[in-house]
Amino acid sequence: MIKVGLIQFEPKLGKPVENISTLQGLLERAHGADLIVLPELSNSGYNFESRMQAFELSEEIKSGDYTEFLTAQAKKNNEYFVSGINERAENKLFNSSILVGPNGLIGTYRKIHLFMNEKDIFEKGDLELKVFDLGFCKTGMLICFDWIFPEVWRILALKGADVICHPSNLVLPYAQQAVPVHGMINRTFNITANRIGTEKSLTFTGQSFISDPSGTILKMASLDKAEIILVDIDPQKARNKMITERNHAFNDRIPSAYTFLTQN
Amino acid sequence: MIKVGLIQFEPKLGKPVENISTLQGLLERAHGADLIVLPELSNSGYNFESRMQAFELSEEIKSGDYTEFLTAQAKKNNEYFVSGINERAENKLFNSSILVGPNGLIGTYRKIHLFMNEKDIFEKGDLELKVFDLGFCKTGMLICFDWIFPEVWRILALKGADVICHPSNLVLPYAQQAVPVHGMINRTFNITANRIGTEKSLTFTGQSFISDPSGTILKMASLDKAEIILVDIDPQKARNKMITERNHAFNDRIPSAYTFLTQN
Repeated sequence: MIKVGLIQFEPKLGKPVENISTLQGLLERAHGADLIVLPELSNSGYNFESRMQAFELSEEIKSGDYTEFLTAQAKKNNEYFVSGINERAENKLFNSSILVGPNGLIGTYRKIHLFMNEKDIFEKGDLELKVFDLGFCKTGMLICFDWIFPEVWRILALKGADVICHPSNLVLPYAQQAVPVHGMINRTFNITANRIGTEKSLTFTGQSFISDPSGTILKMASLDKAEIILVDIDPQKARNKMITERNHAFNDRIPSAYTFLTQN
Repeated sequence: MIKVGLIQFEPKLGKPVENISTLQGLLERAHGADLIVLPELSNSGYNFESRMQAFELSEEIKSGDYTEFLTAQAKKNNEYFVSGINERAENKLFNSSILVGPNGLIGTYRKIHLFMNEKDIFEKGDLELKVFDLGFCKTGMLICFDWIFPEVWRILALKGADVICHPSNLVLPYAQQAVPVHGMINRTFNITANRIGTEKSLTFTGQSFISDPSGTILKMASLDKAEIILVDIDPQKARNKMITERNHAFNDRIPSAYTFLTQN
């Protein structure tokens, strides 16, 4: 068994130092977990007034304060973290997620399906969907609006993810219904770490959760409170892809019948 | 608005004449609907003792009694039906679904994802996934265990289906959670017509339902009673694929990022 969890909190728009400080307090309380997922854009907040504001609040992943903070925390408590980050890469911005552990940065995912006005600010992700073997589990990352594209959940599962980490800033109430079903169909654990609070016209919907390979929500947070959720899971359950003694979730697929998906 | 519906009933194994007679009574009571979906293998029952028994209970679609019965009924009441059928094609068997209207047979789907011992009896479907334009709506067909493969729901929706008809003989309780989510993600109406009753060791789970493009179940049948469910729907709702004013369920897809799905 391993202990996985999430932090639901309210990143403050334009207050990166305060956000790190808030997270430091919360992460101390999550001590003892193996893997913790944080919301999308946890370093910067979400609802930028302009691309320029977003740019000012972005940071290079390799050299930025936020990665440094998470890495120090990961080293200190021997934990792994996944977090959304407003990423600057030269003059481009990406809505990204990083995976860090005691030895530093392990991987990055850049959100490919951009929501609403994110299209004015961020580039579409240009990195391959990857799965990272942490020894105690294999994990992959998606971000928020990716929830509505079953293709990417399937791909991470086919690549061997036991646990899919899903930093989010959700404003609609549908992902909580759909993400557990992605987990049921792909036999993965899914961790959706949503934020809370209001930024101008946007109110975020909280209810972060962890679901299991049967599609059951193991724990769910409140609509509007900062919370830590921790659950003990057995990642081996995600490696059993047998639906019945004669049906395998992946081997029963017929990829030759699915070509329309990549052409349209 | 159009009226769509389903018949939940108990096909009797090995009693094709009795099944037609039962259906005749039920279909009369569904008079006035535009499109009605019936369970999987409604002509023959499900849990065959042997392939030979299944073969004896199969029929050619074009010349069989079951298609003739449905067509006569469709003509009489000016309705369209989708039904599961144990199909014989020369010496092969397929677990198929037919679409018939007042002018006869319109289309056939042969189940591609076979469940458990169906693998000993039926061939894997060899027909392309198709959408049929009935004028009042566009529809496609899937069968039972196809529910766990999000690829095929996506393909029918991408091909323009407003309503996906899903004749079923479900023995697990998960499809009722997953199929509405396929509808939410693809913005389609889905009609799962399940059967009831017990055949040897198998008990079927009823709870047939109709869900809408928001993932909401509009009506659900009981666990164990023969029932007719009818709902008025506006198929145009399934043609609005806008999730937000700047997000389109299909145009926001990035097929070039999904190639892993057709290679693995």
